[in-house]
Order: sequence, then structure tokens, then C-alpha cells
Amino acid sequence: MIYRIDLNSDIGESFGAYKLGMDEEIVKHISSANIACGFHAGDPLVMDKTVRFCKENNVSVGAHPGFPDLLGFGRRNLDASFDEIRAYVIYQIGAMKAFADSHGLNLQHVKAHGALYNMAAVDEKVALAIVEAIRAVDENLICVGMAGTAMEKAAKEVGLRFACEVFADRNINPDGTLVSRKHPNAMIHDEELACKRVLKMIKEGYVEAVDGTLVQVKVDTVCVHGDNPKAVEFARKLKTVLEENGVQIVPMASFL
Amino acid sequence: MIYRIDLNSDIGESFGAYKLGMDEEIVKHISSANIACGFHAGDPLVMDKTVRFCKENNVSVGAHPGFPDLLGFGRRNLDASFDEIRAYVIYQIGAMKAFADSHGLNLQHVKAHGALYNMAAVDEKVALAIVEAIRAVDENLICVGMAGTAMEKAAKEVGLRFACEVFADRNINPDGTLVSRKHPNAMIHDEELACKRVLKMIKEGYVEAVDGTLVQVKVDTVCVHGDNPKAVEFARKLKTVLEENGVQIVPMASFL
Amino acid sequence: MIYRIDLNSDIGESFGAYKLGMDEEIVKHISSANIACGFHAGDPLVMDKTVRFCKENNVSVGAHPGFPDLLGFGRRNLDASFDEIRAYVIYQIGAMKAFADSHGLNLQHVKAHGALYNMAAVDEKVALAIVEAIRAVDENLICVGMAGTAMEKAAKEVGLRFACEVFADRNINPDGTLVSRKHPNAMIHDEELACKRVLKMIKEGYVEAVDGTLVQVKVDTVCVHGDNPKAVEFARKLKTVLEENGVQIVPMASFL
Amino acid sequence: MIYRIDLNSDIGESFGAYKLGMDEEIVKHISSANIACGFHAGDPLVMDKTVRFCKENNVSVGAHPGFPDLLGFGRRNLDASFDEIRAYVIYQIGAMKAFADSHGLNLQHVKAHGALYNMAAVDEKVALAIVEAIRAVDENLICVGMAGTAMEKAAKEVGLRFACEVFADRNINPDGTLVSRKHPNAMIHDEELACKRVLKMIKEGYVEAVDGTLVQVKVDTVCVHGDNPKAVEFARKLKTVLEENGVQIVPMASFL
Repeated sequence: MIYRIDLNSDIGESFGAYKLGMDEEIVKHISSANIACGFHAGDPLVMDKTVRFCKENNVSVGAHPGFPDLLGFGRRNLDASFDEIRAYVIYQIGAMKAFADSHGLNLQHVKAHGALYNMAAVDEKVALAIVEAIRAVDENLICVGMAGTAMEKAAKEVGLRFACEVFADRNINPDGTLVSRKHPNAMIHDEELACKRVLKMIKEGYVEAVDGTLVQVKVDTVCVHGDNPKAVEFARKLKTVLEENGVQIVPMASFL
Repeated sequence: MIYRIDLNSDIGESFGAYKLGMDEEIVKHISSANIACGFHAGDPLVMDKTVRFCKENNVSVGAHPGFPDLLGFGRRNLDASFDEIRAYVIYQIGAMKAFADSHGLNLQHVKAHGALYNMAAVDEKVALAIVEAIRAVDENLICVGMAGTAMEKAAKEVGLRFACEVFADRNINPDGTLVSRKHPNAMIHDEELACKRVLKMIKEGYVEAVDGTLVQVKVDTVCVHGDNPKAVEFARKLKTVLEENGVQIVPMASFL
Repeated sequence: MIYRIDLNSDIGESFGAYKLGMDEEIVKHISSANIACGFHAGDPLVMDKTVRFCKENNVSVGAHPGFPDLLGFGRRNLDASFDEIRAYVIYQIGAMKAFADSHGLNLQHVKAHGALYNMAAVDEKVALAIVEAIRAVDENLICVGMAGTAMEKAAKEVGLRFACEVFADRNINPDGTLVSRKHPNAMIHDEELACKRVLKMIKEGYVEAVDGTLVQVKVDTVCVHGDNPKAVEFARKLKTVLEENGVQIVPMASFL
Repeated sequence: MIYRIDLNSDIGESFGAYKLGMDEEIVKHISSANIACGFHAGDPLVMDKTVRFCKENNVSVGAHPGFPDLLGFGRRNLDASFDEIRAYVIYQIGAMKAFADSHGLNLQHVKAHGALYNMAAVDEKVALAIVEAIRAVDENLICVGMAGTAMEKAAKEVGLRFACEVFADRNINPDGTLVSRKHPNAMIHDEELACKRVLKMIKEGYVEAVDGTLVQVKVDTVCVHGDNPKAVEFARKLKTVLEENGVQIVPMASFL
């Protein structure tokens, strides 16, 4: 049996004179990139360079819209209305799409960033604003989010393809949600274990929660990080382990 | 003989709680709208409303990109590089295009705003950055600018359609450039005269400069303003005078 | 017996090319101004002009800090940390104080704006961040807020003078809180009634809640608006009624 | 004979999630810090931490105002008016001063950043706007700039103390101006030589220009950088060499 999975990472988060992330390294190990769109990170010049970079590395590009909060890197909840969020997401997808178009690439997907991602997981209004924005720009765009969330529900309601995302380095609760970063065991620091867990999710469709219970998971794309050398090295390792075990790393659009 | 001309106006310049312009009134009298894209004015919510508004009034929509200077309303020269300007314009066109797409409209044209417009008229680097940005996003977009400028030259070099713009209320020098706003006779305050001049430009292809010499002018689109009741009333009057004299007011894309 | 009361209004909310509020009119009817500091509204040029304007009209100046959310006019809750809010308020007070200093005025008070004001009324962390910021810059500054709130409690804890604010045009609940704007009877539209209520609060120390029960209120400063002709006219009327009834309108620093 | 000199560096240039500069290292080797004020770099939280940091290291603090251009890091010329620049500088000094006040420190000086610094060196209008802003906030603040520039002239005209700044790693032309960064010999890469040159400027009052002619220079403060390990190491070395040669490194306010 052939297993296919997408590896994604948030890149293009530099801004003006400020450099963030090891984009040149991480793109060698992923199949899809979530590129910041200038609201919480990124700027037009960075977006242009990042798309070119993805093209050179055969990485599919997606928009990574966030709240208009550069100062807080889009990580702070903002009490924006449905219409505001919908318009913010349309705006950012459009800006990103123009750079993709200019490089002859199709925009593949949209993944909300930070607080917007987290709010969309639990708040139907936020989730619906995002998926309506995506559909309004291009109904072929894939929506990325966690399985079982308001985001997934909303995407399916409006008829968008949805990519289920898991985080390679995070523990989960028995109900499938992420263990909060406030808890000591939020992160999986053992790289071997993390790779094994991802492999198990892909091949067997379940994973152990922090309390030992087995939880069903559907995985289309695995999120890895590129903000430090250790993270990049883990991404490289995960990719190698997956490929050695018969898992193909391909852009999500090729199988969704 | 049938004369066809486009009337354009800068709209969608409100931002958040700040309202600017009588958009609801001016759209009744124009055929094309230059909509601010969020850098010097406008915001995602305003852009969405403005496009909807244009659609309801059968007004063709265009992007009106400016410098990232909300504080200065895009009216201050900024020493940005070729790559920066190109990326700023791609970004803004893309954002605008997404709203047009979401309302089922084609984006018709791009007209630079304020300092960017003025710099592009005389600086080849700036002009080229703009037209390359336009072409990179969509080579069918029309570039709007003044005839005889670096902007026109650049647009033609890269193969874009170019719409020659004149200002209904401005005097011109013998060389076809606008009389500086620093001079007392920069503006034409006599509405009758202004209407007659525009009619002459359209039908006869020339206009009187401030020193009385006749200057050849090519007119595709006439810029009118909607920021105060008097301006809107003038736009209404100009439209009436033109139509009474056999000039059809139609979007520029219909004849360029 | 002599009654003294302060009348305050939020002014200086213009930004760049965007004009907001009838500042020139409302300053004739108030004794203290809350001036926006550039985060949710206002800009350096506007702040300078507004302070000069207050000086010419013998109006005492205060800082009106808000969230860094120009797009939302500071009206949207933002999940900022204690340290962030404290630093935002120090920054804005400092900027405002520099303009006051440059015009030879003392900064009199600080009143949080919009979402920051509302959050500080109920959230101890937010309230404490604000009062610690005020004290850190100048312990003689007066903190303005509603009586009985977390804001008042925090101000007293750190030893700041506190000015109890009431809103001339708002109904209150039996517990002293404002009737939500979502309810039809949030506002008092009858100007005569509004004036009488304010007079009663000042002279007798209580007011009728929406259900008819009498509620004790302490009033140091009454908030009036200057964003439209009707509001300005009401401010003028309120001032006249108060003065005719023996109430002196004076800056809060003169009696706190 | 005792020689006294100030060593300054631009610090506090981080913004939100973006880190820039090795502030913790460079403050060990300088006597005065120019702290970004949130317009071209820096944010309220960064300003607070940076001032605390300077206090712990006995480094005197100054404001480092720039153009409102975070995207361009304040390095792009902006065609702002006299009133705008004056207000921008008052605003930024005020914000910085509030953090200094909150830590019980006096603000010592003001040094313009990037394009604002460069424009003020040659443009009288810009220079005058800056010095009037400084004086308006506090006439005891020291203005920092290059000797022989419009900045120095303006500072003296309004009666401000002026600190003559030199750059340890830059070659100069026979007229005392910096060799443009566009020329191959703009920088002095030989650290030994750079130290010797600074020592000569301090002790003998002159330095060799690129063409070998001797140029008189007055030095109050020497600018060093802290944006990379090599720069920090050079600052450490320069300080050591100066002290070993009888030059005391002290804040500029102690001798101006």
C-alpha cells in the first residue's frame, strides 16, 4: 500500500529589516508552505522572495493569513467581527495569490495563523468567516486545520476541500485536542518518538493520547517548524523516516 | 461620429472609523472607480463594500495602489527601491482583485495614487516597477496615467494597454504637464469652462494651455472628484454636458 | 453650597487626512480633554494641534491611551498581557506629555479609551497595568474611570487620585453599571431629562436606574461627546443648565 | 592630560517577535545608548526592557527617533513637512522619556536615525524641525550629530548642547563628510587602524582623509555597532585601546 502525506511549515515571516526563520533550509524538507501575508508577519518583498524560493524547491504555496497585529505576531485574540475577519482573509489571500500568479504558480491552500487559527478551531463564527473568504476568492483552494474542529465543520459546510493537520511535536488529549502549552507535557521532545507517532498516525490512523488511550486521527498534512536549527534537523529526520517507511511526501493538492 | 470616454474617480478611501469621500454619490456619475487598496487609504472592509457598491452601479473597478503611508495619505514621496515598489503594487492589485473576484467582477485597470502617481510620471524606475507589477499579475489590466509621461512610456514598453487620463479641473502648461498646485491658476474654478475644455479635448484633440497656446491631448479617461458636494455636482454636470453633446460615458475597457 | 464638576470629552481623534470630531466646537463647552495618543486614533501633528487648541480654550489636557488598533479605533478587545498594556500606556502618556510640556501645560489626567476602558472596568489585570503605567510616569496624574470598577479599585491601591466619571446620555442598571448598548434603552435621548439626571447626581448623589430604583453615584467628571452637531449642542446645553443651577464647571485637578 | 569620550550605539531595535542586535553584549562596552522609539524600530515593551537594561549597565539613555517607516527601518527618505517632522520627534522623545522617567533615569540626548539623520545633515529644514522638537520637550537634552552639518548649525542656533559624533569604522573625505557606502573604501576593515584613528582624533584633533590629507575633527562621541559578534568584539577592543591610552569612556552629559 502507498501512503501519501504532506509536510507543511509556516515561512515567509520576515519583515523589512527583521529576519525570522530558516526558510532556505526548511523548504528542502517540506511539500507545502504557509506563507505569511503581511498582517501578522511578512511584507510584499518577503512574499515575492518566498514564493520564488518555494518554486525553486518544488514546494506548493499557500496563504497564511492572520490578524492585523504585527506587534503581537498575530498571536493575540482580537475581538473582530465576522465581516472584518472575512474581509481580512480575502485581502490576504488575494495579495498572496498575486505573487503566486506572478511566478506562474497556483495557490494551493489557506491556513489561518496563530490566534486566528486557534479561534477558528472553537468559534463557529470565526471559522465560517474564514471559509467564506476562501470560497469567495477561489473555491478550489484547500482549507487547512485540525480535524474535529469548528474549522473542519465550516469548511465542509461550504464545500471546500479540507486538509487535516497534525503537529509532529505535540501531545494530544484523549478528545483529540492539543495538550495546552501551559502543561509540562505539551511538547514531545524525543525526536524518535515523534517520528514513530507520526508514522503510526499515517499508517494505522491512531495515536496515543497523554493518558495512554488510543485516539483516532486522520492526517493529511503534518506541521513542522523551521525557526531554529534543531527544528529544521527534526523536519529533515521526519521526512527521511517517513520515506524510508514507504510514505511519499507530496503536496496536499495531489491527493485531496 | 460617436465619441466614447471614461469618467474615473478615486473612491474607497475610508479607513476603519474614518469616513472620507461621498462614494455613494459619485459612483452615479462615473464609469470606472479607482479603489484604494489599504496602503495609503482603504481597508479590507471598505474595499469589500466599495466593490459591491460599484457592481450595483455598473461601475468598472480598478486598483488604486499607493505608498505604505496611511499617515501621509500616500501623498509624500518615499525613496523606495524598484523591487519594493514592484512588490507593493503586486500586493495591492492582488488584494483588490480578490474582492473583485469575490463579487464576480473583472478587475479592469490600475492607477497609481498620489506620490506614486506623480513619481511614476517622471521617474522611469518607478514607472517600470509599476507596469512590471501590473503585467506580473494580469497582462490584461489597463494602466492609467497621463499621456507623455514615463508611465505611458513604460506601459507601452511592456505591452500593457494604456489609458490617457486628464483632469477636468486642472490647467496645463504648454508642454502638457499640469500647472503646479503652488501656482494660483492651477485649478479651473469655472465649471462651464471646465466642461467646455473637456469636450474640446475629446472632440478636437487639443486644449488651451495657460499661456493660450493650443496643446494636443489624447483623452481616454477624465478624472473627477467625489470628496465634497461641489465636486460631485460638477461630476454630474460634466457627465450631462458630455452626453448632451454626443459623448458616451463608458468604462475604458470597452474601447481600449 | 458650591458644587464643582468637570466636563470631559474625547478629542484629537483625527488621523492624517482623516478628520473626526468637532473639536473646535466641543472645547468651548468642556473643562478637560482626553486626547488620543496615536495608537487607536490621533497622530503627532493632530496631538500638537489639539493641545494648542485646548490651551487657547483653557481646557485641561489628559492622555487618552488605547490599544494599538487604528483599524478598529481601539474598540475591539485585544488579549494583551499585563506587561504589554503597561508599556503601551507608558508610551502613550509619554508622547502626550511631551506635547503638553512643549506648550507649557501640565498633563492633568489619563483616561483609557474604548476596549481598554471597558476591559479595565472588569479585569483587575488590565486595570492594574494601567494604573502602574500612570504612576510610573507621574504619580500626580489623575486616573479617570467609572466608580465601583476594577479601575477605581486599582487606582486607589497604588495611591492615584481617581476621578469618577458618568455618562450624561446613558441609562444605568440597578448595580450602577451602564445599560448595554444592545438594549433599546441604553441611551437617554431626552436632553432635558439627561440634564436633570446629571444635576441630581451632582447635587443629591443619586440617580434613577432603568427599573426606577435609586442608585448612589459619585460624580467628578461628566463625559460628553463632540462627534456631531447634536452632541455638541447637548454639551452646550448641559453646561448652561449646570451653571444656571449653581454648578461650576472646572478641571478635575482643581478639586481632586 | 585627561581625555574623556563617549561611546554610543543604536540599540532597542527589536520589534514584537522580531529580535535584532546583541543589546545585552554591546551595552557592556558603551557609555550612551540611542534607543529606538517605535517608529522605525522598537516597541513599548522593547523600550521598557532596553531602558532597564541600560540602567543595570550604567549606560546613559537617549532617544533615537526615526521616520514612521517600520517596513523600511527608517532608512528611506520621506518627503515630510517641517511640522510633521517636528511633531514626530516630539512624540518619540516623549515616549522614550516616559520610560526613562519610569526607571528613575534622566533622558540624556537625542540622535536622529537613518534617513532622518542623513537628511538633517544636509537639509536645514529637517535639522531645524528636529532641534525645535528637542528644545520644545526639554532644553537640557543634548543633540547628537556630525560636526559641520546642518544639524550642528541648527542645534547651536536654538541653543542646544551638541555632541559631535564620529564613526569608528568609516573613512572620510577631505571635507569631513563620510565616504559614501557606494565606494569600495567607505569602511575601515582593519580594526587596529580604526582604533588608532579614533585615538588620534581624540588626542590630536585630526584624522587622515582617504586622499591622505589631514582633516580636523572634533569628537564627543564615537558610534559603534552591536548588530553582530564582530561588531561587538570591535567595540570591546576600541574601549580597551582607548582606556589603555588614557581616555576615559564616560556619558556625553558629563563633559558637554
